[in-house]
Amino acid sequence: MSRLDSAIRRLQAQQACIDHAAEAIAGLPGPVLELGLGNGRTYDHLRSRLPGREIFVFEREVAAHPDCLPPDSHLILGDFAETLPEAAARFGATVALAHADIGSGDPAASRRSGGLVARFVPPLLRPGGLLLCELELAVPDLQRLPMPRGVEAERYFYYRKPSA
Amino acid sequence: MSRLDSAIRRLQAQQACIDHAAEAIAGLPGPVLELGLGNGRTYDHLRSRLPGREIFVFEREVAAHPDCLPPDSHLILGDFAETLPEAAARFGATVALAHADIGSGDPAASRRSGGLVARFVPPLLRPGGLLLCELELAVPDLQRLPMPRGVEAERYFYYRKPSA
Repeated sequence: MSRLDSAIRRLQAQQACIDHAAEAIAGLPGPVLELGLGNGRTYDHLRSRLPGREIFVFEREVAAHPDCLPPDSHLILGDFAETLPEAAARFGATVALAHADIGSGDPAASRRSGGLVARFVPPLLRPGGLLLCELELAVPDLQRLPMPRGVEAERYFYYRKPSA
Repeated sequence: MSRLDSAIRRLQAQQACIDHAAEAIAGLPGPVLELGLGNGRTYDHLRSRLPGREIFVFEREVAAHPDCLPPDSHLILGDFAETLPEAAARFGATVALAHADIGSGDPAASRRSGGLVARFVPPLLRPGGLLLCELELAVPDLQRLPMPRGVEAERYFYYRKPSA
């Protein structure tokens, strides 16, 4: 498989998982968190699939396309090591969906971000809340869900906080 | 359509066009030119679909993934404004396929590259040779071909040098 083939499958998995999660949380109140803005492509997808839902974006430094920026009120700037621990005070355990878009060309940086997401995001989810990530996460308190139909296993990772 | 949807369609169009062109030149001798290496994704795709074919890469400054670099003997470094005019002496009119991967976040830079490709690449093609580009090019001496099945019009542009 060429890198072009592989890139297509990765983006299709992202699309399918976000579309599936957006339907799955239709009855679940609470905000959505986008962890890592990058070029803004998945943020744009989240807001297109979840009109009216509050989406908060965590990013160290904004480098997205100008059309794909969240309003300042919904942008939480800073290193995950600081912003994720602080999120508990703001969000409690109300989050319906968190999407961790933390893959990068730097595997060590991705693993570090994955560790922070695994530690600090599960407590923010409400019961039934979902966590999507390109990387496998060590989240023993969450259930791992199977991929939506048509998505290869291991392309994406899909977790759910058990309902009380 | 979100930017994620749009990115998937763009890469699928790239994949479909390259696959189609790779089959179309099966009986046509001559090298392949990749104009713009970028992250190396389409170069990797070209070499996977055209094993044994010589592929020369034109790039201003290499920033590709280390797995996606051409051998030094097949890398032509420099600005298109210099390297494309010089290519006539090296390739004559022998090229079977040129893929111009010149889209970028900077529309003015893309248009400039497109102008250079339109001016200097058609003379390098052998009769029946193909030119693929993400941008529409002003190439009156080439025929515009329809997109392969399943690819939206205007996502990619596909040209052929008439056979003598």
